[in-house]
Amino acid sequence: MEREKALAVVEKAITKQRYQHTLGVMETAISLAKRYGADVKKAELAAIFHDYAKFRPKDEMRKIIIEQNMPKDLLEYNTELWHAPVGAYLVEKEVGISDKEILDAIRYHTSGRENMTLLEKVIYLADYIEPGRSFPGVDEVRELAQKDLNEALVQSISNTIAFLMKKKQPIYPETFKTYNALVMKN
Amino acid sequence: MEREKALAVVEKAITKQRYQHTLGVMETAISLAKRYGADVKKAELAAIFHDYAKFRPKDEMRKIIIEQNMPKDLLEYNTELWHAPVGAYLVEKEVGISDKEILDAIRYHTSGRENMTLLEKVIYLADYIEPGRSFPGVDEVRELAQKDLNEALVQSISNTIAFLMKKKQPIYPETFKTYNALVMKN
Repeated sequence: MEREKALAVVEKAITKQRYQHTLGVMETAISLAKRYGADVKKAELAAIFHDYAKFRPKDEMRKIIIEQNMPKDLLEYNTELWHAPVGAYLVEKEVGISDKEILDAIRYHTSGRENMTLLEKVIYLADYIEPGRSFPGVDEVRELAQKDLNEALVQSISNTIAFLMKKKQPIYPETFKTYNALVMKN
Repeated sequence: MEREKALAVVEKAITKQRYQHTLGVMETAISLAKRYGADVKKAELAAIFHDYAKFRPKDEMRKIIIEQNMPKDLLEYNTELWHAPVGAYLVEKEVGISDKEILDAIRYHTSGRENMTLLEKVIYLADYIEPGRSFPGVDEVRELAQKDLNEALVQSISNTIAFLMKKKQPIYPETFKTYNALVMKN
């Protein structure tokens, strides 16, 4: 699918602000893909559609998680996690993208997972550091992303876990596993 | 077992410095047990013996973990975790304490676990806040421990996870589970 067509599809599905974020993720993902040797076209498409389901009603997302036999524990944790696997499902069903690598990059862009692919890492990180993001620690991750994809990823996941712990929020187990898998490889 | 006899046994098994720490844990555990209604005598004994295996050779501990069918993943994570389950085993075998609550408080005093008992929480926290401890955040946990055992526990586990993440160290999965179980109950 061509970029312009993909952007036109996603523009209708999300808010203007989220669309601006999406453009930032797209540019960052393309740049990271080039730097680390991921498929640039797949990175572009995964980035464009990563938040496709972000504004679906919670009830619809819950229904899809149950009916499509997605991990049930998603329902016990932060609803912010839902749009990623639900997005992968809807992008296939409604947009017609069937490439598994692209769909998995969408699916795991919020939780991460053990043994992430290069493309999944690129999208996760692009979502975290795109130019529109501003929160404590993001510049450090931006710098790391120029040098070492895995180190940048570890730092971004650590920041996310620390942020959730500060708010006494539960941490989705897959996110812990992602962190452990990355630091245990080093 | 009487306090003096227990202390005499443990004094031979650990360093002088660790013995001082143990006395601090004992006093703190007794105080927390009284405050929160745990069994004071069990808290005393669990505290006295919590670090009983701390100075056993790594090889001996590894052998016990394997032969006694302790969770295999212990071997993949920080060796600092080992003395707790190995201690529970050796305190039963060598000291003759068979009370399951005491042994479990020793067993889980470093990792925590989902659904910790009151006694386990008391020992975990006493180990963290005893007067000899001085590290960033310990005073905050000491204050919380006067008000709410679970909140103090969440804070101490959060501090531990943050400390390990700063060093890019893996986090033992049971520790994550302990954190999640505590914050998801609130």
